[in-house]
Amino acid sequence: MNNAITSLFNIKYPIIQGGMIWCSGWELAAAVSNAGGLGLIGTGSMRPNIAEEHIKKCAKATNKPFGVNIPLLYPHSDDIISIVLKEKVKIVFTSAGNPKKYTSLLKENGVTVVHVVANKKFALKAAEAGVDAVVAEGFEAGGHNGFEETTTMVLIPMIREIIDIPLIAAGGIASGRAMYAAMALGADGVQIGSRFAASAESSAHKHFQDEIVRADDGDTVLALKQIVPVRLIKNEFLNRVQQLEAKGATKDEFLKLLGKGRARKGMFEGDIAEGELEIGQVASMIRSVEPVATIIDDIVTEFNQISEKMKGRNL
Amino acid sequence: MNNAITSLFNIKYPIIQGGMIWCSGWELAAAVSNAGGLGLIGTGSMRPNIAEEHIKKCAKATNKPFGVNIPLLYPHSDDIISIVLKEKVKIVFTSAGNPKKYTSLLKENGVTVVHVVANKKFALKAAEAGVDAVVAEGFEAGGHNGFEETTTMVLIPMIREIIDIPLIAAGGIASGRAMYAAMALGADGVQIGSRFAASAESSAHKHFQDEIVRADDGDTVLALKQIVPVRLIKNEFLNRVQQLEAKGATKDEFLKLLGKGRARKGMFEGDIAEGELEIGQVASMIRSVEPVATIIDDIVTEFNQISEKMKGRNL
Repeated sequence: MNNAITSLFNIKYPIIQGGMIWCSGWELAAAVSNAGGLGLIGTGSMRPNIAEEHIKKCAKATNKPFGVNIPLLYPHSDDIISIVLKEKVKIVFTSAGNPKKYTSLLKENGVTVVHVVANKKFALKAAEAGVDAVVAEGFEAGGHNGFEETTTMVLIPMIREIIDIPLIAAGGIASGRAMYAAMALGADGVQIGSRFAASAESSAHKHFQDEIVRADDGDTVLALKQIVPVRLIKNEFLNRVQQLEAKGATKDEFLKLLGKGRARKGMFEGDIAEGELEIGQVASMIRSVEPVATIIDDIVTEFNQISEKMKGRNL
Repeated sequence: MNNAITSLFNIKYPIIQGGMIWCSGWELAAAVSNAGGLGLIGTGSMRPNIAEEHIKKCAKATNKPFGVNIPLLYPHSDDIISIVLKEKVKIVFTSAGNPKKYTSLLKENGVTVVHVVANKKFALKAAEAGVDAVVAEGFEAGGHNGFEETTTMVLIPMIREIIDIPLIAAGGIASGRAMYAAMALGADGVQIGSRFAASAESSAHKHFQDEIVRADDGDTVLALKQIVPVRLIKNEFLNRVQQLEAKGATKDEFLKLLGKGRARKGMFEGDIAEGELEIGQVASMIRSVEPVATIIDDIVTEFNQISEKMKGRNL
């Protein structure tokens, strides 16, 4: 397939691996890029010197294009941008913040810029800021989500209508079937997080990966809406969050319960009871931890099967 | 197209009009059936004598198959079932309750039975109860939704994996594009609610229809989770529901605020400030009130366009 996304990034398949905190270091990003997708280093959980190390290692581990994800509300984002420019990273995905913040600077330096959005307002803002593509992320996605709670099924055609630049769908996509559906809805490519969090090359702790595989229908909840919404696997920590919700707690009470390092504790250190376990709803469909090459191959094979099955379907 | 759903109901297009309260009387159901879909009379807002009248009028207004929707928690469901059998209605969709309650009785009387579910547990229960098909309804749908909050993108492939009987997708579907995507995800047909609520033949009040057309991204919210979750358009009433949520109110406080006749007041009588306005997230994509024949034609045309566009798409 050659389309707007494969040519924008010069990759084989329009499959982007989401730049997730605590899961996507250089090893995952390089593996995805080597398998024909676009790997992203998730810098949202890295101090600048660590991010630099990951970028250098990734560049050695693949001669294919790769990128980094930078959450703009992250306190070290200025430093990460400097490192990106110094290391000549060619692709940057920004999220959780104002797309105007770095887009011009990055573009002037020849970087391809993509911004992650969850609603119409930010899709338009991103296009106005001059980004090269937009990721539209539905309510079912893991990590931080929009307050509108618009699902992938509704979000993708809605954003497709209002922007002309390439569109990447995210949220609920872990299979070739879902990828095909997302492209029928109007996306030029997909961003897949949860399935790669559960890959052999992911830096997610084994206990967290076991939880992803175990998770079934209804086992993730969009929580912490009082601070920033985030989709979490049900556990002791989430129970306590929900107890606060039930009693109408203040933002400060939520911040106090959250404390520092909750996500690291859960996702990287494997404390599945007390940690924050960010994952998409589609964890309910992930049955095993596989190497990245197997995952990509499986997605590609299923996509082509569905394409064959849907051929000539007319009403 | 001839598939499991068109042959189950003997209809031209695998498009089912959701049996919505206050919106889908005989006029809407007959119009959808006459246009080649399957129209459903929504009895959830009808006293038994009114339901009987609608069934009789629908039978006169179309010689095509039509059905009724019966929410099983509805206090008059026994009486509606008796009327269905007396009037020889051939198709019944049950929802919001135990699928074992009437399935055997209906099947013994030659009725085709479909049950609406929002999770794996009830999909399996429905299949075990012997229903002929299942509607799987995602988080983005209007009306009453599952506590799991599973979206259409995740729900359809998940249910497809565990049941062998025909599967109808609902939630977020108002266009041929979304219908095509739902079928790629594994559905044999779709149930469309919101778009038909905004049709010329709907019994929804004009003021409510104006709100559906006006609604944009983020303008519906899944609310009243303390009682039964329901997706509502933002208005004064919803503000007060959310104020109760913020203070951690009890179930009784929610029931007191809800009172009686809120949905009738909003959807049928047109009190858009104080009424309960149930609608799907996809209202954000509905731009006008059209006759049913135009809506079906538009969906069919777009479905075929997307089918053509996706032809031969391979990775």
